[in-house]
Amino acid sequence: MPTYKAPLRDMKFLLNEVFDYPGHYQTLSTGANATPDIVEAVLNECGRFCEEVLSPLYQSGDEEGCRLQDGEVKTPKGFKDAYQQYASGGWQGLSAPEEFGGQGLPASMGLFKQEMMGTANWSFSMYPGLSLGAMNTLFLHGSDEQQQTFLAPLVDGRWSGTMCLTEPQCGTDLGQVSTKAEPQADGSYLLTGTKIFISSGDHDLTENIVHIVLARLPEAPKGTRGISLFIVPKFLPGPDGAVGERNAVSCGGLEQKMGIKASATCVLNFDNARGYLIGPENQGLECMFTFMNTARIGTALQGVGPTELSYQWALDYARERRSMRALSGKKEPEQVADALIHHADVRRMLMTQKAIAEGGRAMLYYAARLADHMVDGHVRGDQEAVDKYDDKLGFLTPILKGFLTELGNEAANLGMQVFGGHGYIREHGMEQIVRDTRIATLYEGTTGIQALDLLGRKVLLMTRGGAVREFTLKIANFARKQLGNSQLRPMALELLKLSGQWNLLTMRILLAARKDRDVVSAAANDFLMYSGYVTMAYIWARQASVAIRKLDTGGDESEAFYRAKLATAEFYYQRLLPRAQAHASGMLAPADSLMRLTPDELASTG
Amino acid sequence: MPTYKAPLRDMKFLLNEVFDYPGHYQTLSTGANATPDIVEAVLNECGRFCEEVLSPLYQSGDEEGCRLQDGEVKTPKGFKDAYQQYASGGWQGLSAPEEFGGQGLPASMGLFKQEMMGTANWSFSMYPGLSLGAMNTLFLHGSDEQQQTFLAPLVDGRWSGTMCLTEPQCGTDLGQVSTKAEPQADGSYLLTGTKIFISSGDHDLTENIVHIVLARLPEAPKGTRGISLFIVPKFLPGPDGAVGERNAVSCGGLEQKMGIKASATCVLNFDNARGYLIGPENQGLECMFTFMNTARIGTALQGVGPTELSYQWALDYARERRSMRALSGKKEPEQVADALIHHADVRRMLMTQKAIAEGGRAMLYYAARLADHMVDGHVRGDQEAVDKYDDKLGFLTPILKGFLTELGNEAANLGMQVFGGHGYIREHGMEQIVRDTRIATLYEGTTGIQALDLLGRKVLLMTRGGAVREFTLKIANFARKQLGNSQLRPMALELLKLSGQWNLLTMRILLAARKDRDVVSAAANDFLMYSGYVTMAYIWARQASVAIRKLDTGGDESEAFYRAKLATAEFYYQRLLPRAQAHASGMLAPADSLMRLTPDELASTG
Repeated sequence: MPTYKAPLRDMKFLLNEVFDYPGHYQTLSTGANATPDIVEAVLNECGRFCEEVLSPLYQSGDEEGCRLQDGEVKTPKGFKDAYQQYASGGWQGLSAPEEFGGQGLPASMGLFKQEMMGTANWSFSMYPGLSLGAMNTLFLHGSDEQQQTFLAPLVDGRWSGTMCLTEPQCGTDLGQVSTKAEPQADGSYLLTGTKIFISSGDHDLTENIVHIVLARLPEAPKGTRGISLFIVPKFLPGPDGAVGERNAVSCGGLEQKMGIKASATCVLNFDNARGYLIGPENQGLECMFTFMNTARIGTALQGVGPTELSYQWALDYARERRSMRALSGKKEPEQVADALIHHADVRRMLMTQKAIAEGGRAMLYYAARLADHMVDGHVRGDQEAVDKYDDKLGFLTPILKGFLTELGNEAANLGMQVFGGHGYIREHGMEQIVRDTRIATLYEGTTGIQALDLLGRKVLLMTRGGAVREFTLKIANFARKQLGNSQLRPMALELLKLSGQWNLLTMRILLAARKDRDVVSAAANDFLMYSGYVTMAYIWARQASVAIRKLDTGGDESEAFYRAKLATAEFYYQRLLPRAQAHASGMLAPADSLMRLTPDELASTG
Repeated sequence: MPTYKAPLRDMKFLLNEVFDYPGHYQTLSTGANATPDIVEAVLNECGRFCEEVLSPLYQSGDEEGCRLQDGEVKTPKGFKDAYQQYASGGWQGLSAPEEFGGQGLPASMGLFKQEMMGTANWSFSMYPGLSLGAMNTLFLHGSDEQQQTFLAPLVDGRWSGTMCLTEPQCGTDLGQVSTKAEPQADGSYLLTGTKIFISSGDHDLTENIVHIVLARLPEAPKGTRGISLFIVPKFLPGPDGAVGERNAVSCGGLEQKMGIKASATCVLNFDNARGYLIGPENQGLECMFTFMNTARIGTALQGVGPTELSYQWALDYARERRSMRALSGKKEPEQVADALIHHADVRRMLMTQKAIAEGGRAMLYYAARLADHMVDGHVRGDQEAVDKYDDKLGFLTPILKGFLTELGNEAANLGMQVFGGHGYIREHGMEQIVRDTRIATLYEGTTGIQALDLLGRKVLLMTRGGAVREFTLKIANFARKQLGNSQLRPMALELLKLSGQWNLLTMRILLAARKDRDVVSAAANDFLMYSGYVTMAYIWARQASVAIRKLDTGGDESEAFYRAKLATAEFYYQRLLPRAQAHASGMLAPADSLMRLTPDELASTG
């Protein structure tokens, strides 16, 4: 079983050569800490930790899984020790404010850390990952006292957090939430209800767990406008801040899942559990979703990280395993057969993985700059900046989450395919990546929900196409500047064409939706995927333009790296981007063939 | 957990209304047995067996899996009883010649049986399924004595069979096979070597197992021309035909797999095991591959059956689970939310499944007529007919196997997606379908191998495009006849366009391959998928034309069924068929961006 190597060269290429992060960090109030030396040191050290500590636990964690023992969840062997190294290394507070014990680095650096951790061991990374949601909620909506009590132990990793939304009867449709919160004389509340699918809902890694819970006050309005947000700790904090009395929240079961088996997915029973209101009454959903864009980008990482891992393993295998001869003639005549890597169809699979891993990473790093600005707005109390960057991020988020996780599944399956029948055998680890990655299009909003959020909300309802106009203008401006470069010109021309088409498609759907609202839902998935392919095309062209420049200059020790960049960009334009046109056709189809059958007709068997 | 319902209405629609099987059977020498009454009775009874006996063991078989105990494989609870019912019902010999105890029905009826069994419980169906390969090999290449000894107990299901090809160092590249066969004084051979991935290699369902094994004679030529075929029974048959002495073939281990866990995938160790040469020396591969097309069509079923199963379960769930409101307004105002089925994006997923299940089934039933004619040629000793139909089938086989199993994986994942997060939980069974189906693109030749077989061998090498010309002529002739029908006209026009394009693409690749042989491998996957989409379009139009005619006539009790057929055909043309154009673009791209990087450049990290 090969092991994870942090793709530091590619990360630094994006940070320093493509997206000018050094300059970007200088514009942030938190940027003073993020000097190039610090960034380099953090990336290297994080890479080492992920390679040496987290990667070796990837397969064993899946084999062992989590256990529920006497009402407490036990994580797989090695996780507790790894988590202690993680916490004591100060990693949890990397991007948290210094006033709460964090290191005060920009939000994007947290993303780079998450990417490496999630690639080395996605299940492990979910334990600290879920804490970030709780931290963000407390940071934005907690009272001073709540922040004093809960934030510091979360930031230093002594405690962890969860987000408790889903109930048996509802996941997407949170208006159906029915967990009750009864106010008590002392200002606290007693919560009763059942939450399901709670990642890290119980475990043995930290001394306490802070649940952020959606529930209803008595007499609250029905639907989404009657939901409030509560802090419910596993152990009530004592007056000294130490862990006190056990609260009445318990793990009623562990879900048996297809993958991410080392991540504890809990049924949580709240049985008059003590909680504390956070944020205003009945505005729980708004509070919960404040940092939703950043959380969803964290999930989008699952389209990129496992693709990178699968690519690394598949590439190694393709260089070692020998089968048949290349069609263009023997490549290794001294061997019994040529290595798989000499077969063009195997190359197609590997290059697809590489294009998705590096293209997806670049899309995320592009968006992470916007996230930095948004967080910086919060820090500076500049709501205008917050709104501006949240909008820009809000347009990209469903594309990143929906498109990249769909492609991540494809890529994980291709990696398995490179192994042939051996890919289906557990010991090679390729099928684990497929199983683990499969959750990515389901949680944090399914692909269908991302698609509706993008087309229905961000594009049509909120901006009447304006979000597409703004983004395509940026693409077109970039493309026009590249027309003079003969190597980049074909990509630039394609981008110009796509910029126009994206707007045209948006307008046609806008018009069609006036007559038939179902058109929006019928077109949403194709629109999402189309948007993803075009966005990735833009981002690949930006990488290619840097690679061409560096190769033109010459003499760089990274020439092989730049040549690979350029070939991958060309591959993407030639063999993956054409799919955008299939989605363009699909989204313009009338909704009629989809919707005209009654459920009985659809199920008709006679 | 919902259970399997045999889609008998759709099967009979294809047999009786679309492909005129009653007329077809009259042209076969084995057809006299296959009267409409018999066909009807066999389908109904097989459906009942699959629904009542096999379907209930689907999930439990996966949970329990197979165990290796004291060197013997134990199948999951209930399998042995189910197999005994299967064997005593005479199902194993359904399409086997009467002279060996079979029922002498056409080969296609065996396929319909396999489809239902494989849909209800794919893992179970592999045990009798593997026997078919052994039976076919013995039927065609066995001596009279070998047939007397081995065929009858295989036909009545008392014994089962395997095909032992793969070794640790080679799967696709069988020229690397190294198992040795030493001739003995009595005319038998002693075989030594290790075979891996042997489905049904050991189990407790039958009293004996007949292994068909590829091995090398001493001094045999290197590569594929030095491989011979042997019969190696688990127990040597005694003179009375009963089971005698234990042979030196043993199960050295069970593979831990992603899915099909109730199917025993064995490492088999041959340690001077006694075997009998079957067919001529050094022509083992040709003998083994005689019925390869039919075996691969059996695997193509795995693209269709699990899609049907996943569709049935997802459709039930979509009708029951409520979430949000339809964009076009409340559909069930008295309920807390609308059922999933009212959301267009959920419809898109369900209709995709339906289009693949029914379109794929129809493609298989179309091909099964050709298989009938080929087998009939064998029965009648008419080699010309055998060759003619084997060629026609040989063109369709990689399309069916490659394309349908790729789409089957997509469909299984869509079914899971309909369930949202619940799809990832084992108890619902949706993730099992995904895991089980995943093997389909890997075994019996990966998709890459199917693609090379189609483009490199069947289309370019053997016929220089003739196979495409012949098949598209058939499509175009059908399409022209439909132009006068206003409802079918859009599909007919599209088919005419695609018929021309398919030939043009073939010619362009033929020309490009003269300059660069890698083009063939680089284009093969796109060519395969393109071919699949066009073939399915043809088959959907044929179904639509029948549905339109029936709806025009009116008064049929199946009106809902026909309306669903027509809507699904339209859906296919509007939302799935456009993908063919993305593959058309991809296949014409130069191989350069795929092939120009050295392996080191591809792996470059600095």
